[in-house]
Amino acid sequence: MADNDGSRLHLVWYTATELQERQLQSATEVTPFLTRDGVTWLHVQGLTDPATIEAVGEAFGLHPLALEDVLSGQQRSKAEEYDGQDFVVAYLVHEDAGHALQYTRLSLFVGPNYVLSLLGGDEDLLEPVRQRLRTPRAAVRQHGVDHLMHSLIDLVVDSYFPVLEDFGEYLEFVQDETLLRQRPEALVAIQHAKRELLGLRRAVWPLREILNVLMRDDNNTVTPPVRHYLRDCYDHVVMLIDTIETYREMASDLMDAYMSAVSNRLNSVMKILTVIATLFMPLTFIVGVYGMNFRTDVSRWNMPELTWRYGYPLCWAVMIVTVIGMLLYFRKLGWIGGGDVPCVEDDGIVCGHRERMLAARKGTQTRS
Amino acid sequence: MADNDGSRLHLVWYTATELQERQLQSATEVTPFLTRDGVTWLHVQGLTDPATIEAVGEAFGLHPLALEDVLSGQQRSKAEEYDGQDFVVAYLVHEDAGHALQYTRLSLFVGPNYVLSLLGGDEDLLEPVRQRLRTPRAAVRQHGVDHLMHSLIDLVVDSYFPVLEDFGEYLEFVQDETLLRQRPEALVAIQHAKRELLGLRRAVWPLREILNVLMRDDNNTVTPPVRHYLRDCYDHVVMLIDTIETYREMASDLMDAYMSAVSNRLNSVMKILTVIATLFMPLTFIVGVYGMNFRTDVSRWNMPELTWRYGYPLCWAVMIVTVIGMLLYFRKLGWIGGGDVPCVEDDGIVCGHRERMLAARKGTQTRS
Amino acid sequence: MADNDGSRLHLVWYTATELQERQLQSATEVTPFLTRDGVTWLHVQGLTDPATIEAVGEAFGLHPLALEDVLSGQQRSKAEEYDGQDFVVAYLVHEDAGHALQYTRLSLFVGPNYVLSLLGGDEDLLEPVRQRLRTPRAAVRQHGVDHLMHSLIDLVVDSYFPVLEDFGEYLEFVQDETLLRQRPEALVAIQHAKRELLGLRRAVWPLREILNVLMRDDNNTVTPPVRHYLRDCYDHVVMLIDTIETYREMASDLMDAYMSAVSNRLNSVMKILTVIATLFMPLTFIVGVYGMNFRTDVSRWNMPELTWRYGYPLCWAVMIVTVIGMLLYFRKLGWIGGGDVPCVEDDGIVCGHRERMLAARKGTQTRS
Amino acid sequence: MADNDGSRLHLVWYTATELQERQLQSATEVTPFLTRDGVTWLHVQGLTDPATIEAVGEAFGLHPLALEDVLSGQQRSKAEEYDGQDFVVAYLVHEDAGHALQYTRLSLFVGPNYVLSLLGGDEDLLEPVRQRLRTPRAAVRQHGVDHLMHSLIDLVVDSYFPVLEDFGEYLEFVQDETLLRQRPEALVAIQHAKRELLGLRRAVWPLREILNVLMRDDNNTVTPPVRHYLRDCYDHVVMLIDTIETYREMASDLMDAYMSAVSNRLNSVMKILTVIATLFMPLTFIVGVYGMNFRTDVSRWNMPELTWRYGYPLCWAVMIVTVIGMLLYFRKLGWIGGGDVPCVEDDGIVCGHRERMLAARKGTQTRS
Amino acid sequence: MADNDGSRLHLVWYTATELQERQLQSATEVTPFLTRDGVTWLHVQGLTDPATIEAVGEAFGLHPLALEDVLSGQQRSKAEEYDGQDFVVAYLVHEDAGHALQYTRLSLFVGPNYVLSLLGGDEDLLEPVRQRLRTPRAAVRQHGVDHLMHSLIDLVVDSYFPVLEDFGEYLEFVQDETLLRQRPEALVAIQHAKRELLGLRRAVWPLREILNVLMRDDNNTVTPPVRHYLRDCYDHVVMLIDTIETYREMASDLMDAYMSAVSNRLNSVMKILTVIATLFMPLTFIVGVYGMNFRTDVSRWNMPELTWRYGYPLCWAVMIVTVIGMLLYFRKLGWIGGGDVPCVEDDGIVCGHRERMLAARKGTQTRS
Repeated sequence: MADNDGSRLHLVWYTATELQERQLQSATEVTPFLTRDGVTWLHVQGLTDPATIEAVGEAFGLHPLALEDVLSGQQRSKAEEYDGQDFVVAYLVHEDAGHALQYTRLSLFVGPNYVLSLLGGDEDLLEPVRQRLRTPRAAVRQHGVDHLMHSLIDLVVDSYFPVLEDFGEYLEFVQDETLLRQRPEALVAIQHAKRELLGLRRAVWPLREILNVLMRDDNNTVTPPVRHYLRDCYDHVVMLIDTIETYREMASDLMDAYMSAVSNRLNSVMKILTVIATLFMPLTFIVGVYGMNFRTDVSRWNMPELTWRYGYPLCWAVMIVTVIGMLLYFRKLGWIGGGDVPCVEDDGIVCGHRERMLAARKGTQTRS
Repeated sequence: MADNDGSRLHLVWYTATELQERQLQSATEVTPFLTRDGVTWLHVQGLTDPATIEAVGEAFGLHPLALEDVLSGQQRSKAEEYDGQDFVVAYLVHEDAGHALQYTRLSLFVGPNYVLSLLGGDEDLLEPVRQRLRTPRAAVRQHGVDHLMHSLIDLVVDSYFPVLEDFGEYLEFVQDETLLRQRPEALVAIQHAKRELLGLRRAVWPLREILNVLMRDDNNTVTPPVRHYLRDCYDHVVMLIDTIETYREMASDLMDAYMSAVSNRLNSVMKILTVIATLFMPLTFIVGVYGMNFRTDVSRWNMPELTWRYGYPLCWAVMIVTVIGMLLYFRKLGWIGGGDVPCVEDDGIVCGHRERMLAARKGTQTRS
Repeated sequence: MADNDGSRLHLVWYTATELQERQLQSATEVTPFLTRDGVTWLHVQGLTDPATIEAVGEAFGLHPLALEDVLSGQQRSKAEEYDGQDFVVAYLVHEDAGHALQYTRLSLFVGPNYVLSLLGGDEDLLEPVRQRLRTPRAAVRQHGVDHLMHSLIDLVVDSYFPVLEDFGEYLEFVQDETLLRQRPEALVAIQHAKRELLGLRRAVWPLREILNVLMRDDNNTVTPPVRHYLRDCYDHVVMLIDTIETYREMASDLMDAYMSAVSNRLNSVMKILTVIATLFMPLTFIVGVYGMNFRTDVSRWNMPELTWRYGYPLCWAVMIVTVIGMLLYFRKLGWIGGGDVPCVEDDGIVCGHRERMLAARKGTQTRS
Repeated sequence: MADNDGSRLHLVWYTATELQERQLQSATEVTPFLTRDGVTWLHVQGLTDPATIEAVGEAFGLHPLALEDVLSGQQRSKAEEYDGQDFVVAYLVHEDAGHALQYTRLSLFVGPNYVLSLLGGDEDLLEPVRQRLRTPRAAVRQHGVDHLMHSLIDLVVDSYFPVLEDFGEYLEFVQDETLLRQRPEALVAIQHAKRELLGLRRAVWPLREILNVLMRDDNNTVTPPVRHYLRDCYDHVVMLIDTIETYREMASDLMDAYMSAVSNRLNSVMKILTVIATLFMPLTFIVGVYGMNFRTDVSRWNMPELTWRYGYPLCWAVMIVTVIGMLLYFRKLGWIGGGDVPCVEDDGIVCGHRERMLAARKGTQTRS
Repeated sequence: MADNDGSRLHLVWYTATELQERQLQSATEVTPFLTRDGVTWLHVQGLTDPATIEAVGEAFGLHPLALEDVLSGQQRSKAEEYDGQDFVVAYLVHEDAGHALQYTRLSLFVGPNYVLSLLGGDEDLLEPVRQRLRTPRAAVRQHGVDHLMHSLIDLVVDSYFPVLEDFGEYLEFVQDETLLRQRPEALVAIQHAKRELLGLRRAVWPLREILNVLMRDDNNTVTPPVRHYLRDCYDHVVMLIDTIETYREMASDLMDAYMSAVSNRLNSVMKILTVIATLFMPLTFIVGVYGMNFRTDVSRWNMPELTWRYGYPLCWAVMIVTVIGMLLYFRKLGWIGGGDVPCVEDDGIVCGHRERMLAARKGTQTRS
């Protein structure tokens, strides 16, 4: 049908022993299923067609405010009870081809014998749950709507793990670029990573609250055996939150480290300039002295060096001594040459620490 | 009337089926409405005329402290109960022509069958609510004073969304100016943005508390069906708070990024200086050497180069070799030339990350 | 009397209709008043005379620990109940001639029909409350000791508003000095402001707790009508705290901004140095070349330019071209000249943002 | 006795009227006292002799875990109940000759009629409490073990006040060294101070919790009159915590200020370099020009200035004009000379703020 | 048996008087022990063999989700109750040869008369507990499964102490390298340390929650006498957390200190450059002046100095005076020479503080 163009309706009805699946043409076809035993799951893919969604809302008796929430552009993740229905909003995440994070909103309405799921975008990301449903002896078939709801929320939670793993590797990479190579792109990349982490945090934090609401004793939908599964899910969310917070700290530290690395580099640039200037300024002065035009015939005070037999080599000797003296001074300051002093202090602990510090560096290098 | 010059009184009285609207000349005209069925809404526009407001206070039996709160210059956003009345103070926001944020205080007194609203400034910002009231079958007409109160608070909450959206775009823009162009105005703009965000936060945070107070079970004004609406409103406030906190983090990060960008720039300035100084100092020394006035006739040690046939071209050759050597050295340090090394490492993951890092930069550039 | 030299005792006794006022010579004179109806308020000004204060303590039956608190140098702001008495400690603030903040401790003991107030320093800062008491129909005369206590605490709270207002203006001023003029005094001024804010915070935060304690339902001194007044007072304290926290954030931001501004300035200093050095180093080299003493008669390779007819103007031409080329390069880098590029991008939004950013700067400038 | 070498036992037994004091040779001598009326206080000085401590533990029936706690090197400050005994661990602090902070652990076991105190180190720091006990009419003699426990905890709390006062002065001193003199030692001193503050915080924070535990209603040891005293003690701890947190903020701010001050100084160093380089580079170029060896006889274009009558003074004139021009430019930039502009703006407020800012500086200077 | 290759089963059964120990070939061999009196402890070493672990799970009746937790790669530390069993997950830590921290997961299932422990890795880290069990009169033999569980958790907690002690020394070492030697490796080492601390924190924080859950009154496994032991364990965890947080603060401070130290160093580099440039630029100018080729015969204005008798020594005199003047100026600025001014101010306090500040430095130096 034309009016279903933007929103596809997919129905699954099952009991422990039976399962039916069909694409619906209109929302009204769902009504007979709602009076049958077993679990009815209607999935609406795509939210661009308000008419269909309103028809669905009528079929399931949704509250107008909940319907508005589904259709509105932005919506907070949450779990609420509306007149005996559990209403859950959460965001699935996936990385697109350009490594950008895409969030897709999943709205769930869970009644006594039905689950209504609404998902934005074109891609049907809930297929893995349907696959599991089709296995006759799967755990999800043994329980009611609460286990199906758990499977859908679990799908949401699991979508964050690969994204965060990839993100972790990326952060390590940026860290190496920052600490070891000080690439200026690193600055933009760190800022970018921090913003992506803010987005992930906003998506993941409410999941904990959602699971808390569903696991509460006064929730009528969730039965005790499924509560165990939700608790497992809750553990995963806590791990996600932990990881995100750790990454956020790492990104903040990276920013500091980047600034330190840049300062370090500036330092070494300035050292080169200072060494060069300090070497050549006295030399230029010395050769300038003998370029002066004082008349050597007027007084014997006037630049007698110019007429000495070894004046010229003496002049070079003075200049070479000056340069060597300065080089030695800079070496003493540790600005040039030197390298790592071998660890010969008699205190074994200090040597161990020094090696550890150097190892920290290499550890970072070999990881890349 | 002259004494109403600064404060205009606008009355709306309605039931589900009827609606009357009039401008009042004095506060006493409202009294007969208060004894009628239906909802009486008196709106006072402009708080510059204490006499009128005191007359209104008398008509509605307001507590002297509440009246003082309405008239005083500064007042905290809050919801309180005064002798059976709900008293709500909140701030509407709008951007003026110069993009500065203007806050206008709205005070609400909600009794069993009336709503009294008082708004500072000249502009009647509550017109949208009145528009909705005029539609006979609007939801607000079906309920009592609690739904009208919700509509007014919803108006306050909704006033923040366009402001924050605009602010978000502005922050992105400042970020690009900071990271990619390091404009010195960015520093002032970031400080300015941080201060505006502090103001927004002070205005939005109490809204959450206000809604919490109104949704409490022991509140007598709000009926269960309207509680659903307030909860929706509460969700919006939480989203606002989330957004403001995210923007605050972004602004803090921007400050760091700005300092890093400035350091980076300083670094590149110093590199140019160092390259130039390092190139020309040895050259100037060399030409200085041959400008010395040692007498070539005194000793064959004295600057024989000056009389050699190829002395002059040799001198140039030495200088050119020096320059080329230094340029190669600087290239090796990565200070000049070079550009992006193509990603040819055999580890595919590292190449993927490098592209991602570069993409982060371009992503930022194309957004502007 | 000699033993009252350091501590002056001022007594006010009043009912709704009557009021008596006198300076007491010794603490024992207060005893007959305590058995009369109405409210007895004894004010002790100056805490340098322990004997008098101990006599007062005996007259009012104070707990030895409370008395010790009053006399000890440092004391935390708090509200406590000691054997049926409310004991309140709080700090009044005022700015002295040198803009330094001075804190004066006010200790209150509130019994069933008396208020005992003890204030450090020489200045009797409680006169405004006494003025209000003298007005026969003032609200404070209609209630008991609780309203007098409220008036005294309100006096404490109100003392912070002018101080904070002045402080806000001062911070704006320091901000301009920092962002627009980078005066080095600003650094010391920011540190100073942060310390003053720490002091203000320590004084204001406990006031919230004090009011909470007094407004609790189980407090016997405070009657319900006065609780409304204390709630108003509480609102003011919350506003003070809000303001102080905002100022603290502003001061922290200023510190960051100062460092950025200094970095910016360093950057521009370095640019000037780099421009000058880059301009003159090649020139000095060129003129050095023609200062060399190669003998032009030995070989035709030896500096033929020196004998060319247009050698000298050619030399100048080369130098001028070099300078112009470098100036163009620096202009391209944006180091010199240029100014603000007019906003001609076709995307209107970007232009709007740019104007806003520039406006932020001007906004800051015109405020000063 | 030999086995008491490392741990000295000091016994005090008292009632309101009597007091006995003796050095014990072995722990078993305490047993007869425990069955008498009055309070028995055994103090063990020095924890290096496990045998004695175990004997003491047996005499008082201590739990093996509590005994282990006493003997183990590190132990958290805490208050616990072990089988009817109150067990308190806290740390006394004092500054040694080198201004380093020394923490000494005090363990208290409080039973119905005895107090057992164990203190590390050689020095008997509890003597002041004993002094007070010896006064027949002291408050501590009128109450039971709870007042003695309070006296001992009060001793712990009071040991922090002089240390913090000294620390505050030290911080002020470091601040002046940082802001006004930028001594590089300041960096190490700030780090050192931050670490000492971390230590103080770890010692003081648990004291609040300890007092909370002891003041709880279900504590059997503490009687209501002594609860007043503990509350006073609690107030002191809150003040200590306040002060430590303030100092921590000050130290953090100092770190920022130090970095700003260093940047400022770098700035001024660079300005001097830039001024000198900018002054002399053009001059050196000019004199270089006239050092060129163009043959003046070849063409009239070739450096005619050399043969002009006023060529040399003209050359000086050009150089002097260049220098003066540059100096004026630097003055305009505010790099040299200038000093404080007198406050002549017509806006009195701005002038007031400027004076205040300058005063802030002087205030800091005169304090040192 | 082949299928036990990856997972070794070790059984201990004991009562207060008896103890049996054996390596099991398959999980079914444990069943007879579970019906006997006394405590049965089965330890599974190595989690690479899912078949064995599933067999174990069947023998002990584990929940499928708990089993999944044991086998899955990542798992949060926690304590839960599953159908009457206590399920505890925690991480043991040890440092490998390269000073890297290795975390090994320990899963515990505690039933009424058995403890099942599962440990990753090859190394049997629980041997110390078994040693203690073999001592007939050990406390652990006197109690039931709860004391064995306590011993295992205590082992986990104790594994962190040597690691943190080593870490503390390492941080001190890095601090010295940072503050006193500014080695660039320090930057990487600080970042590395911060990441290791994040890992430690994630491992230690949940231990507190685990112990809280086990010590709760409604826990059926833990008996009151063992609760004392867990409380001791809890104290240790709080000390660990304290230490980790302190180290985290120290590492953050180090980062700041590193940046300050680098800035300091940059400052001193720039000073050297500025001193050298400022010394030689005027000198080069002066000698340049006398290198000009103005014809001395054209006018008496043209460089008469060249023909003066003492022109040359005068020129040197001017140059020497210039250099000395500048050196004195730099000394006045405190850039060169000077050293520590002896403390001669008449205010003894300031001198004391100065010595303390200098002592802070030495204290840091001698510690290394």
